[in-house]
Amino acid sequence: MTTDLAPAVEAPEALVARLAGVGRAAQRVLARMDAPAKAAALHAAAAALRAAESTILAANAQDMAAGEARGLTGAMLDRLRLDSARLAGIADAVDAVADLPDPVGQVIDRSVRPNGLELSRVRVPVGLIGIIYESRPNVTADAAALCVRSGNAVLLRGGSEAVHSNRAIHAALVQGLVSAGVPEAAVQLMPTQDRAAVGAMLTAAGLIDMIIPRGGKSLVARVQADARVPVLAHLDGICHTFIHAAADPAKARAIARNAKLRRTGICGAMETLLIDSTFPDAQAVVADLLDGGCELRGDARARALDPRINPASAEDWDTEYLDAILSVAVVDGLGAALAHIERHSSHHTDAIVTEDESVAEQFLAEVDSAIVMVNASTQFADGGEFGLGAEIGIATGRLHARGPVALEGLTTYKWQVRGTGQVRL
Amino acid sequence: MTTDLAPAVEAPEALVARLAGVGRAAQRVLARMDAPAKAAALHAAAAALRAAESTILAANAQDMAAGEARGLTGAMLDRLRLDSARLAGIADAVDAVADLPDPVGQVIDRSVRPNGLELSRVRVPVGLIGIIYESRPNVTADAAALCVRSGNAVLLRGGSEAVHSNRAIHAALVQGLVSAGVPEAAVQLMPTQDRAAVGAMLTAAGLIDMIIPRGGKSLVARVQADARVPVLAHLDGICHTFIHAAADPAKARAIARNAKLRRTGICGAMETLLIDSTFPDAQAVVADLLDGGCELRGDARARALDPRINPASAEDWDTEYLDAILSVAVVDGLGAALAHIERHSSHHTDAIVTEDESVAEQFLAEVDSAIVMVNASTQFADGGEFGLGAEIGIATGRLHARGPVALEGLTTYKWQVRGTGQVRL
Repeated sequence: MTTDLAPAVEAPEALVARLAGVGRAAQRVLARMDAPAKAAALHAAAAALRAAESTILAANAQDMAAGEARGLTGAMLDRLRLDSARLAGIADAVDAVADLPDPVGQVIDRSVRPNGLELSRVRVPVGLIGIIYESRPNVTADAAALCVRSGNAVLLRGGSEAVHSNRAIHAALVQGLVSAGVPEAAVQLMPTQDRAAVGAMLTAAGLIDMIIPRGGKSLVARVQADARVPVLAHLDGICHTFIHAAADPAKARAIARNAKLRRTGICGAMETLLIDSTFPDAQAVVADLLDGGCELRGDARARALDPRINPASAEDWDTEYLDAILSVAVVDGLGAALAHIERHSSHHTDAIVTEDESVAEQFLAEVDSAIVMVNASTQFADGGEFGLGAEIGIATGRLHARGPVALEGLTTYKWQVRGTGQVRL
Repeated sequence: MTTDLAPAVEAPEALVARLAGVGRAAQRVLARMDAPAKAAALHAAAAALRAAESTILAANAQDMAAGEARGLTGAMLDRLRLDSARLAGIADAVDAVADLPDPVGQVIDRSVRPNGLELSRVRVPVGLIGIIYESRPNVTADAAALCVRSGNAVLLRGGSEAVHSNRAIHAALVQGLVSAGVPEAAVQLMPTQDRAAVGAMLTAAGLIDMIIPRGGKSLVARVQADARVPVLAHLDGICHTFIHAAADPAKARAIARNAKLRRTGICGAMETLLIDSTFPDAQAVVADLLDGGCELRGDARARALDPRINPASAEDWDTEYLDAILSVAVVDGLGAALAHIERHSSHHTDAIVTEDESVAEQFLAEVDSAIVMVNASTQFADGGEFGLGAEIGIATGRLHARGPVALEGLTTYKWQVRGTGQVRL
């Protein structure tokens, strides 16, 4: 028997304020570390992940057992599952982030004023970043690595179904980072799965500098609705491909098939195909898709192309299927395609297939989406494919960063002013 | 007698949705106008402002009379008042914005991927911007000009005390813009002073792309608390100047005096002076300020410098006086100065005076403020002084834009991808 009192329960706001305080202090230390030191720390973290394989896989087995008992779907269990190869992939990804160029300290621009003041804009870390995510335990390592590489402290809040996996990954990561001089609190994992703690993160304006939600629509919607902290978010990817009259037929067929069917569940997958009414090979394009196992839902003119095409409802034009389903419309020229995209696109990624350069340039100029493409598959909408090395997400908002967001999107800038005693008149 | 029914009252949300809809349509037209066309339109708007002088001054006289009747303070009436010279200044400012380089279409960076895809990041307008402001009617023209120059549509909501002035300025501006091909709805003034309409603007996520509040603390605080739309805001300017041991005494005296007393009411005015305990000319610095009519509030060591210095309370270190009052502390070296600034600065603008270059560089690197300065007056924290030509405000947040925000801060970017038929493996 003990006479100790039970520990006082810490209110979620107090918990977040405490974690943010130590996180920010750690960030100040991290911000002073140079690029090689941060890289070395991330390599140490990757090594620690590999060394902790048995611990991490055992923790993951606990989550898997609990998930099966709770009746998680096969897809959810697959997202949750780790094995030796997947864990190696997670560690490799941390090594890869370590080797990316460090954006911190880059001089964006510089000028000298007539009075002799020298002005520079220099990239600096955003500060303390909150990541709220769901079942994939790899996010714990990916997000932490991107934040540390860019000099940010991070407060991670993963899903309850992955809690043991996340704790094990976090413990290994931090052990590696600390061994290389990074303060322990630079990477923190929320110690509770209490949902109120998420609310406290979202409203911690002034304590957390940016929240990045990573997960499904309901998570992102909750974060956007409740946040007082700026949010860098990924919403729908209702991506269009417009096959223009002057499209090369072979390119049009290959691009349409790839944009829809290479992987149907990613945000860059095409969800609506627009075909110019004078494009001569429309039937071949839709036949390819139908033969490839895709359900097509079309307007009246599209349905005339192939009897296998089902009728589209009004909602289809605004639906992100993330599946082998595609809405198809026949349109009269670039103007009609632009109007359809303006009305229905989620402004994530939209593409045109055409050999007419002036039409291509008009499409690139007028479609107001994060990514606009000519003669390429929308499935290229990805930080890795863009050469960014890794991405924290694809931002569908308009401010701060847009499209694939990697290290640069985790920085801001400061103005440095070097004078020689100037005073203002 | 009329049998007409009274017009149905439009709910604030419906009003904002309607204005945002026509504003966005107008923005699409504006986005297609090239830089010379937008410049010509702004010059036409400036000319229209000059031509409407008598109408605008008559409207302003109405506001002034109402303001006097309502008992507005002298300072408020002065902010509200227009005369021939002030109106000419407003028109000149519109001309000046017209002549600024257009950021739209600038290529931020470009790369070619191994598969031949060409990637460019190109600056584009943010879209539809909401400006919520208080009594200065010049904001109506300034903000509209900056938005139009950068290809944005704008929804303006000014203060009720300036309602007639704002309407007259808006009418003249739009007449000029329309004469040069800009759609009328590119610059809209909220037709009601109903406060619920402000709330509807703040929550119009997806309709308005960014809100910029311009006004006092209570306005900005309300906007930040209630907004669901991203906000680019200016909070406190608790600016520090640290006089290091190796400061040049003449520079230190001139900078301290200028930073505090040139204009005490601007956000870049110094509010706290930190003096190294080994700086030999501390007495002269504080004497200059006291002789210049400034009240000094000091810690114990500062008060030992001059008997005229009053004691500082704990709150003084966190106060933006915007007046001829200054808090003064004596600190032991750079580390203590950095710690004080980290704790008390609002991270707007902080400066060091020193001839020691390595200390200067450490200060520039470690102080995490929007603007960090060496050997210069904090009063230079201004878009015009930074060569930006004009500013929509000084952002104290960390995302999107930081410090003085001018045209570039009113843009975002899109990724343009030019392919030759690439599909993703």
